[in-house]
Amino acid sequence: MSAKEKGLRFERELIDLLWECGFAAVRVAGSGVSSFPCPDIIASNGKITFAFEVKSRSKLPLYLDEREVKDLAMFSTLFGAKPYIALRLLRMKWKFVELEKLEKTSKGYRIDENIFSLAPDLEEITGKSFQLRLL
Amino acid sequence: MSAKEKGLRFERELIDLLWECGFAAVRVAGSGVSSFPCPDIIASNGKITFAFEVKSRSKLPLYLDEREVKDLAMFSTLFGAKPYIALRLLRMKWKFVELEKLEKTSKGYRIDENIFSLAPDLEEITGKSFQLRLL
Repeated sequence: MSAKEKGLRFERELIDLLWECGFAAVRVAGSGVSSFPCPDIIASNGKITFAFEVKSRSKLPLYLDEREVKDLAMFSTLFGAKPYIALRLLRMKWKFVELEKLEKTSKGYRIDENIFSLAPDLEEITGKSFQLRLL
Repeated sequence: MSAKEKGLRFERELIDLLWECGFAAVRVAGSGVSSFPCPDIIASNGKITFAFEVKSRSKLPLYLDEREVKDLAMFSTLFGAKPYIALRLLRMKWKFVELEKLEKTSKGYRIDENIFSLAPDLEEITGKSFQLRLL
Protein backbone atom coordinates (compact mmCIF):
# COMPACT_ATOMS: atom_id res chain seq x y z
CA MET A 1 0.00 0.00 0.00
CA SER A 2 1.44 3.39 -1.01
CA ALA A 3 1.90 6.25 1.47
CA LYS A 4 -0.90 8.10 -0.32
CA GLU A 5 -3.32 5.15 -0.04
CA LYS A 6 -2.40 4.72 3.62
CA GLY A 7 -3.02 8.43 4.27
CA LEU A 8 -6.40 8.18 2.55
CA ARG A 9 -7.33 5.11 4.60
CA PHE A 10 -6.61 6.93 7.85
CA GLU A 11 -8.51 10.04 6.73
CA ARG A 12 -11.54 7.83 5.97
CA GLU A 13 -11.19 6.11 9.35
CA LEU A 14 -11.30 9.49 11.11
CA ILE A 15 -14.30 10.61 9.04
CA ASP A 16 -16.19 7.43 10.02
CA LEU A 17 -15.40 8.04 13.72
CA LEU A 18 -16.54 11.67 13.48
CA TRP A 19 -19.90 10.69 11.96
CA GLU A 20 -20.30 8.13 14.77
CA CYS A 21 -19.77 11.02 17.24
CA GLY A 22 -22.59 13.01 15.59
CA PHE A 23 -20.38 15.24 13.42
CA ALA A 24 -20.88 15.84 9.70
CA ALA A 25 -17.35 15.31 8.39
CA VAL A 26 -15.85 15.71 4.90
CA ARG A 27 -12.50 15.17 3.24
CA VAL A 28 -11.25 18.29 1.47
CA ALA A 29 -10.36 17.86 -2.22
CA GLY A 30 -6.96 19.09 -3.36
CA SER A 31 -5.63 19.60 0.15
CA GLY A 32 -1.91 20.30 -0.30
CA VAL A 33 -2.26 21.19 -4.00
CA SER A 34 -4.98 23.85 -3.92
CA SER A 35 -3.89 27.47 -4.34
CA PHE A 36 -5.81 28.30 -1.15
CA PRO A 37 -4.79 27.00 2.28
CA CYS A 38 -7.02 24.11 3.31
CA PRO A 39 -7.07 21.34 5.89
CA ASP A 40 -7.49 17.59 5.20
CA ILE A 41 -10.81 17.21 7.03
CA ILE A 42 -13.56 19.60 8.15
CA ALA A 43 -16.25 18.53 10.61
CA SER A 44 -19.07 20.21 12.51
CA ASN A 45 -22.10 19.33 14.62
CA GLY A 46 -23.50 22.85 14.27
CA LYS A 47 -21.95 23.87 17.61
CA ILE A 48 -18.28 22.90 17.38
CA THR A 49 -16.41 23.03 14.07
CA PHE A 50 -13.04 21.34 13.54
CA ALA A 51 -10.31 21.67 10.90
CA PHE A 52 -7.87 18.75 10.92
CA GLU A 53 -4.47 18.25 9.35
CA VAL A 54 -4.13 14.45 9.38
CA LYS A 55 -0.85 12.62 10.06
CA SER A 56 -0.12 8.93 10.53
CA ARG A 57 3.26 7.72 11.72
CA SER A 58 4.92 4.58 13.08
CA LYS A 59 6.93 6.56 15.62
CA LEU A 60 7.60 10.00 17.09
CA PRO A 61 8.79 12.73 16.92
CA LEU A 62 6.67 14.11 14.12
CA TYR A 63 7.95 17.20 12.31
CA LEU A 64 5.67 19.77 10.69
CA ASP A 65 6.51 22.53 8.20
CA GLU A 66 5.96 26.05 9.44
CA ARG A 67 3.90 26.78 6.28
CA GLU A 68 1.56 23.83 6.90
CA VAL A 69 0.81 24.93 10.47
CA LYS A 70 0.37 28.60 9.56
CA ASP A 71 -1.99 27.68 6.69
CA LEU A 72 -4.11 25.54 9.03
CA ALA A 73 -4.24 28.38 11.57
CA MET A 74 -5.15 30.94 8.90
CA PHE A 75 -7.87 28.77 7.35
CA SER A 76 -9.36 27.94 10.75
CA THR A 77 -9.51 31.57 11.88
CA LEU A 78 -11.41 32.57 8.75
CA PHE A 79 -13.68 29.50 8.69
CA GLY A 80 -14.42 29.71 12.40
CA ALA A 81 -13.03 26.24 13.13
CA LYS A 82 -10.89 24.85 15.94
CA PRO A 83 -7.64 23.61 14.34
CA TYR A 84 -5.93 20.35 15.33
CA ILE A 85 -3.13 18.10 14.12
CA ALA A 86 -4.95 14.75 14.09
CA LEU A 87 -2.30 12.13 14.75
CA ARG A 88 -2.69 8.37 14.31
CA LEU A 89 0.34 6.62 15.75
CA LEU A 90 0.77 2.93 14.83
CA ARG A 91 -1.45 0.72 17.05
CA MET A 92 -2.62 3.77 19.05
CA LYS A 93 -5.92 5.61 19.04
CA TRP A 94 -6.29 9.05 17.48
CA LYS A 95 -4.88 12.02 19.39
CA PHE A 96 -5.51 15.68 18.62
CA VAL A 97 -2.78 18.24 19.19
CA GLU A 98 -3.70 21.92 19.50
CA LEU A 99 -1.44 24.27 17.53
CA GLU A 100 -0.34 26.14 20.68
CA LYS A 101 0.89 22.82 22.13
CA LEU A 102 3.33 22.21 19.23
CA GLU A 103 7.01 22.59 20.05
CA LYS A 104 8.77 25.21 17.90
CA THR A 105 11.92 24.11 16.09
CA SER A 106 14.26 26.14 13.87
CA LYS A 107 12.41 25.04 10.69
CA GLY A 108 8.89 24.43 11.95
CA TYR A 109 7.18 22.44 14.67
CA ARG A 110 7.55 19.11 16.45
CA ILE A 111 5.34 16.66 18.34
CA ASP A 112 7.25 14.43 20.78
CA GLU A 113 6.15 11.63 23.16
CA ASN A 114 5.35 14.12 25.92
CA ILE A 115 3.09 16.32 23.77
CA PHE A 116 1.43 13.19 22.32
CA SER A 117 0.68 11.66 25.73
CA LEU A 118 -0.94 14.87 26.99
CA ALA A 119 -3.04 15.42 23.84
CA PRO A 120 -6.81 14.85 24.05
CA ASP A 121 -8.52 11.96 22.25
CA LEU A 122 -11.66 12.04 20.10
CA GLU A 123 -14.05 11.67 23.04
CA GLU A 124 -12.43 14.62 24.77
CA ILE A 125 -12.47 17.05 21.85
CA THR A 126 -16.02 16.15 20.84
CA GLY A 127 -17.25 16.52 24.41
CA LYS A 128 -18.25 12.85 24.75
CA SER A 129 -15.98 12.40 27.76
CA PHE A 130 -16.13 14.49 30.90
CA GLN A 131 -13.38 12.53 32.63
CA LEU A 132 -10.92 14.75 34.49
CA ARG A 133 -7.49 14.78 32.92
CA LEU A 134 -4.92 14.74 35.69
CA LEU A 135 -1.94 16.58 34.25
CA MET B 1 -13.73 19.23 -22.31
CA SER B 2 -15.61 16.44 -20.52
CA ALA B 3 -18.69 17.08 -18.38
CA LYS B 4 -16.60 16.20 -15.32
CA GLU B 5 -13.84 18.69 -16.21
CA LYS B 6 -16.46 21.35 -16.89
CA GLY B 7 -18.09 20.69 -13.51
CA LEU B 8 -14.71 20.95 -11.80
CA ARG B 9 -13.93 24.23 -13.59
CA PHE B 10 -17.17 25.79 -12.37
CA GLU B 11 -16.65 24.53 -8.81
CA ARG B 12 -13.19 26.16 -8.81
CA GLU B 13 -14.67 29.38 -10.19
CA LEU B 14 -17.17 29.51 -7.32
CA ILE B 15 -14.45 28.76 -4.76
CA ASP B 16 -12.34 31.67 -6.11
CA LEU B 17 -15.35 34.00 -5.87
CA LEU B 18 -16.09 32.91 -2.30
CA TRP B 19 -12.50 33.60 -1.17
CA GLU B 20 -12.77 37.03 -2.82
CA CYS B 21 -15.89 37.63 -0.68
CA GLY B 22 -13.94 36.77 2.49
CA PHE B 23 -15.11 33.18 2.83
CA ALA B 24 -12.83 30.19 3.39
CA ALA B 25 -14.15 27.74 0.78
CA VAL B 26 -13.26 24.13 -0.01
CA ARG B 27 -14.23 21.50 -2.53
CA VAL B 28 -15.42 18.29 -0.88
CA ALA B 29 -13.60 15.11 -1.95
CA GLY B 30 -15.71 12.17 -3.07
CA SER B 31 -18.93 14.16 -3.26
CA GLY B 32 -21.43 11.87 -4.96
CA VAL B 33 -19.41 8.71 -4.25
CA SER B 34 -18.86 8.95 -0.49
CA SER B 35 -20.96 6.69 1.74
CA PHE B 36 -21.97 9.80 3.72
CA PRO B 37 -24.11 12.59 2.27
CA CYS B 38 -21.94 15.56 1.36
CA PRO B 39 -22.21 18.74 -0.67
CA ASP B 40 -19.83 19.86 -3.47
CA ILE B 41 -18.54 22.97 -1.67
CA ILE B 42 -18.48 24.15 1.94
CA ALA B 43 -17.66 27.76 2.85
CA SER B 44 -17.67 29.88 5.97
CA ASN B 45 -16.54 33.28 7.21
CA GLY B 46 -16.98 32.24 10.84
CA LYS B 47 -20.45 33.81 10.95
CA ILE B 48 -22.33 32.36 7.96
CA THR B 49 -21.65 28.81 6.74
CA PHE B 50 -22.81 27.54 3.34
CA ALA B 51 -23.19 24.06 1.83
CA PHE B 52 -23.51 24.15 -1.96
CA GLU B 53 -24.62 21.56 -4.50
CA VAL B 54 -23.14 22.94 -7.74
CA LYS B 55 -24.89 22.72 -11.10
CA SER B 56 -23.99 24.22 -14.47
CA ARG B 57 -26.40 24.13 -17.37
CA SER B 58 -26.89 25.71 -20.77
CA LYS B 59 -30.64 26.04 -20.26
CA LEU B 60 -33.51 25.57 -17.84
CA PRO B 61 -35.43 23.82 -16.38
CA LEU B 62 -32.97 21.98 -14.16
CA TYR B 63 -34.13 18.72 -12.58
CA LEU B 64 -32.80 17.46 -9.25
CA ASP B 65 -33.13 14.00 -7.70
CA GLU B 66 -35.09 13.83 -4.48
CA ARG B 67 -32.18 11.93 -2.84
CA GLU B 68 -29.66 14.66 -3.77
CA VAL B 69 -31.79 17.42 -2.23
CA LYS B 70 -32.61 15.44 0.90
CA ASP B 71 -28.91 14.57 1.40
CA LEU B 72 -27.94 18.24 1.10
CA ALA B 73 -30.64 19.22 3.61
CA MET B 74 -29.59 16.47 6.04
CA PHE B 75 -25.88 17.32 5.84
CA SER B 76 -26.54 21.04 6.27
CA THR B 77 -28.77 20.58 9.31
CA LEU B 78 -26.08 18.53 11.08
CA PHE B 79 -23.15 20.73 9.97
CA GLY B 80 -24.97 23.95 10.80
CA ALA B 81 -24.79 25.27 7.24
CA LYS B 82 -27.25 27.10 5.00
CA PRO B 83 -27.90 24.85 1.97
CA TYR B 84 -28.16 26.16 -1.59
CA ILE B 85 -28.28 24.83 -5.13
CA ALA B 86 -25.52 26.95 -6.74
CA LEU B 87 -26.51 27.33 -10.37
CA ARG B 88 -24.30 28.62 -13.17
CA LEU B 89 -26.37 29.11 -16.29
CA LEU B 90 -24.44 29.65 -19.55
CA ARG B 91 -23.27 33.29 -19.86
CA MET B 92 -25.08 34.21 -16.61
CA LYS B 93 -23.72 34.95 -13.17
CA TRP B 94 -24.09 32.51 -10.29
CA LYS B 95 -27.50 32.24 -8.63
CA PHE B 96 -28.29 30.45 -5.38
CA VAL B 97 -31.59 28.65 -4.93
CA GLU B 98 -32.82 27.86 -1.42
CA LEU B 99 -34.21 24.34 -1.02
CA GLU B 100 -37.64 25.62 0.03
CA LYS B 101 -37.86 27.53 -3.29
CA LEU B 102 -37.47 24.36 -5.41
CA GLU B 103 -40.56 23.21 -7.24
CA LYS B 104 -41.64 19.67 -6.31
CA THR B 105 -42.15 17.24 -9.19
CA SER B 106 -43.31 13.61 -9.09
CA LYS B 107 -39.68 12.32 -9.04
CA GLY B 108 -37.79 15.15 -7.35
CA TYR B 109 -37.40 18.89 -7.78
CA ARG B 110 -37.20 21.47 -10.55
CA ILE B 111 -35.76 24.96 -11.09
CA ASP B 112 -37.48 26.91 -13.87
CA GLU B 113 -36.92 30.41 -15.31
CA ASN B 114 -39.16 32.00 -12.70
CA ILE B 115 -37.35 30.43 -9.70
CA PHE B 116 -33.97 31.26 -11.29
CA SER B 117 -34.82 34.92 -11.87
CA LEU B 118 -35.94 35.40 -8.27
CA ALA B 119 -32.91 33.61 -6.76
CA PRO B 120 -30.28 35.72 -4.96
CA ASP B 121 -26.77 36.19 -6.35
CA LEU B 122 -23.44 35.85 -4.54
CA GLU B 123 -23.43 39.42 -3.22
CA GLU B 124 -26.86 38.91 -1.73
CA ILE B 125 -26.21 35.63 0.06
CA THR B 126 -22.83 36.77 1.42
CA GLY B 127 -24.32 40.02 2.69
CA LYS B 128 -22.22 42.22 0.35
CA SER B 129 -25.34 43.75 -1.12
CA PHE B 130 -28.05 45.46 0.87
CA GLN B 131 -30.05 46.41 -2.18
CA LEU B 132 -33.76 45.90 -1.72
CA ARG B 133 -35.15 43.12 -3.88
CA LEU B 134 -38.48 44.19 -5.26
CA LEU B 135 -40.42 40.98 -5.70
